[in-house]
Amino acid sequence: MLLRQHIVETLREVFESYGFEPLATPALERESVLLGYGDEASKQIYRFEDPDGVRVGLRFDLTVPLCRFVLSHPDLVLPFRRYQVQSVWRYDKPDPGRFREFLQFDIDTVGAASVAADGETMAAMAEALRRLGVPFRIRFSNRKILNGLIRYVGVGEELAHPVFRIIDKLEKIGFERVLKQLGEGYVDDSGAPIEGLGLETAQIGKIERFLSVGGERREEVIAALGDLLGGIAEAEEGIEELQEVSGVLDALGVGDEEAVVDPTIARGLDYYTGVVYEAQVVGGERYGSVMGGGRYDGLIRALGGGDLPATGASVGVDRLAFVVEALDLWRRRRTVSDVLVTVMMADKVAEYMRLADELRKAGLCVEVYMGASRAIGKQLRYADRKGVRFVVIVGEEEWSQDMVSVKDLRVGEEAAERIKGREEWLKKRAGQITVPRKDLVAWLKERLQR
Amino acid sequence: MLLRQHIVETLREVFESYGFEPLATPALERESVLLGYGDEASKQIYRFEDPDGVRVGLRFDLTVPLCRFVLSHPDLVLPFRRYQVQSVWRYDKPDPGRFREFLQFDIDTVGAASVAADGETMAAMAEALRRLGVPFRIRFSNRKILNGLIRYVGVGEELAHPVFRIIDKLEKIGFERVLKQLGEGYVDDSGAPIEGLGLETAQIGKIERFLSVGGERREEVIAALGDLLGGIAEAEEGIEELQEVSGVLDALGVGDEEAVVDPTIARGLDYYTGVVYEAQVVGGERYGSVMGGGRYDGLIRALGGGDLPATGASVGVDRLAFVVEALDLWRRRRTVSDVLVTVMMADKVAEYMRLADELRKAGLCVEVYMGASRAIGKQLRYADRKGVRFVVIVGEEEWSQDMVSVKDLRVGEEAAERIKGREEWLKKRAGQITVPRKDLVAWLKERLQR
Repeated sequence: MLLRQHIVETLREVFESYGFEPLATPALERESVLLGYGDEASKQIYRFEDPDGVRVGLRFDLTVPLCRFVLSHPDLVLPFRRYQVQSVWRYDKPDPGRFREFLQFDIDTVGAASVAADGETMAAMAEALRRLGVPFRIRFSNRKILNGLIRYVGVGEELAHPVFRIIDKLEKIGFERVLKQLGEGYVDDSGAPIEGLGLETAQIGKIERFLSVGGERREEVIAALGDLLGGIAEAEEGIEELQEVSGVLDALGVGDEEAVVDPTIARGLDYYTGVVYEAQVVGGERYGSVMGGGRYDGLIRALGGGDLPATGASVGVDRLAFVVEALDLWRRRRTVSDVLVTVMMADKVAEYMRLADELRKAGLCVEVYMGASRAIGKQLRYADRKGVRFVVIVGEEEWSQDMVSVKDLRVGEEAAERIKGREEWLKKRAGQITVPRKDLVAWLKERLQR
Repeated sequence: MLLRQHIVETLREVFESYGFEPLATPALERESVLLGYGDEASKQIYRFEDPDGVRVGLRFDLTVPLCRFVLSHPDLVLPFRRYQVQSVWRYDKPDPGRFREFLQFDIDTVGAASVAADGETMAAMAEALRRLGVPFRIRFSNRKILNGLIRYVGVGEELAHPVFRIIDKLEKIGFERVLKQLGEGYVDDSGAPIEGLGLETAQIGKIERFLSVGGERREEVIAALGDLLGGIAEAEEGIEELQEVSGVLDALGVGDEEAVVDPTIARGLDYYTGVVYEAQVVGGERYGSVMGGGRYDGLIRALGGGDLPATGASVGVDRLAFVVEALDLWRRRRTVSDVLVTVMMADKVAEYMRLADELRKAGLCVEVYMGASRAIGKQLRYADRKGVRFVVIVGEEEWSQDMVSVKDLRVGEEAAERIKGREEWLKKRAGQITVPRKDLVAWLKERLQR
């Protein structure tokens, strides 16, 4: 939770600085709204009848609820830019880092046709990942280029999405198998036959050439794409947009090493119409993308609205937290508490509370021990198990002298090695310092660097 | 959303300073867990069968999920103190400020038998409401005193909860009707007969005497309760606990005007066993309580666990936001954005973004206009409708001189009165100041007091 909150706070801070407004929508939407997803998704939606007999379902993502919200607020000031941090539910096979309820952080701009909005979203995302200390790489492309590819290859429109979906699996199944699946199919590791799309060798060769376009610098890849697909109007439009996005990224300080053009990025969802992108954690690629998005200019119309361009991205907060944790990319905090004030004298509880409150007023997070025990060993073990760093002890002796004892359990983590075991160390007065009560705030603040 | 977030942030900050840890639980719980509530609540729970045929339901509150969490984590470090901010769902009649999905902020301490934990929760709550600038009054009592009352009145145990529930309606139906309902019943305003509990006149007289105990100072009310119920063991225990809570409130700076003892506080839920309390907004009493809580030492056992004492409180965030808004207790913010950077020259979008980014790096929330229009009037109207205060304009002229123009729309709010209408004012260069680009950050920060 502490890591999740840290991620959410960071994202919020960055996206608010870009003027995205917070939005929340109800968990339950009418089933008819949710079924706009297509069959594959429908199977994963938790659907039921409410006590009034209305068919409802739990939201599956935050994009469709956004579109529904826009449609039901015709007076909304456009462009409308919002962020939304809420759970979504998918009836799916749970996996490590993949849950049936998970937290998504979505950012979208509705009513902005310019790809500057796409570039800005990517730049803000880069800034958020930077602030989180997560090494990342954003890869981006454009569906218009993929549409151009279809023309270049010379296959029918009806094969466009099937081709995109195969290309999208490149990372997962590799180059060889993608080419085979475009052609005659192959037999996978479990012995199951994977049906091929049946393209001709020359056509597959063209896709192979396309998928081989790459490079370290955005300009270079954009130029290579121009060489390959020049003359195909839709591809040229897509290439021009990539150039514009790249310019926005330059202006906002996102370099080639953070965001590269990668023509193999297709993104699974059918509703994308323009720029598409996803981000992975460098070193954590095997966990998949932690953020992805793109332009979906047709979705609001498909849901019954007018012609409203829209673009945006999703961060899987739980997934990102899982990767950050797995790669040990954050300094783990186990508790919010900085200090535990022990209760040594049962009749002085109000006094301990007063002391704790003084520390709180100085900006520290402080708890007073609420268990029944008055034994120091038990209270120290409580702090140690929770991960509270400082323990404040005021016994009869300290009380009479207006002093307090403080024990730094982090020092103990190293010291314990030397003095045979933590349990033993905890019991000892080792690492315990006695300071005048009036100096306690300053003493703690210095060590906690507040 | 901005007000809600402000409330949640404030509560979080205060409760973390008391060492409460964040927790989140899934929206769906097994139906068998949720049905621990009793019949009345069960009717309000959204229940259904998941695709695997498991009976599940949406959580109804955050207390039962907490107990379930504690039961399923036997290794939890106790006392366990957590806060939780999540939606709950109740199939109920929606009302102003009462929704079927609403956000709750709960704080609980599990494994602490001492009422010091109750007092601390109340004090933290008081601090949060103070920081929100909401005038409030916490009223508290103790179920043990009510149990003592039952003995004092001389009715059977089986009538205890029915009596409490009638007492709990005091605020809603008034003194007269409470007494009538305890006796022979009455006919309500719609002409419907309300059945009475059938107590004898002498018994009702005793309850009347009890309900009349009150006063401005905690000590005074506690003393009066001692006079009335002295000698009844359970009542005496309850009174002693009130005294202890009052001492904790004193230590934590919560005076008599913020928290009073009110013997008429019973709290509807059957599971409370000790201290109970609720808070209302002064001047907004008609909206009901915005926070309530108490001790429920028996609930974890009732849900199949061991003997674990527990105490805590709930804040209805949506309700509180509604009251704060209705009483006009906050300075309404309509947007997160401080500044809108207009786009005057289509080929300079990247430059506008660079300018916006400079402002962001100085800590401001800045958006670049993402609509298609390059007309200044349209962009100003956008900022005005959204409530963005400052608009930055860089046209050909400013560009060539390395200057920027800034328009303060808040000044305009007053000026517009004088210059026939806002629309007219927006179009004018009125209230617009031109400053060197290098001075823009300082100029804005001064006016925004950052």
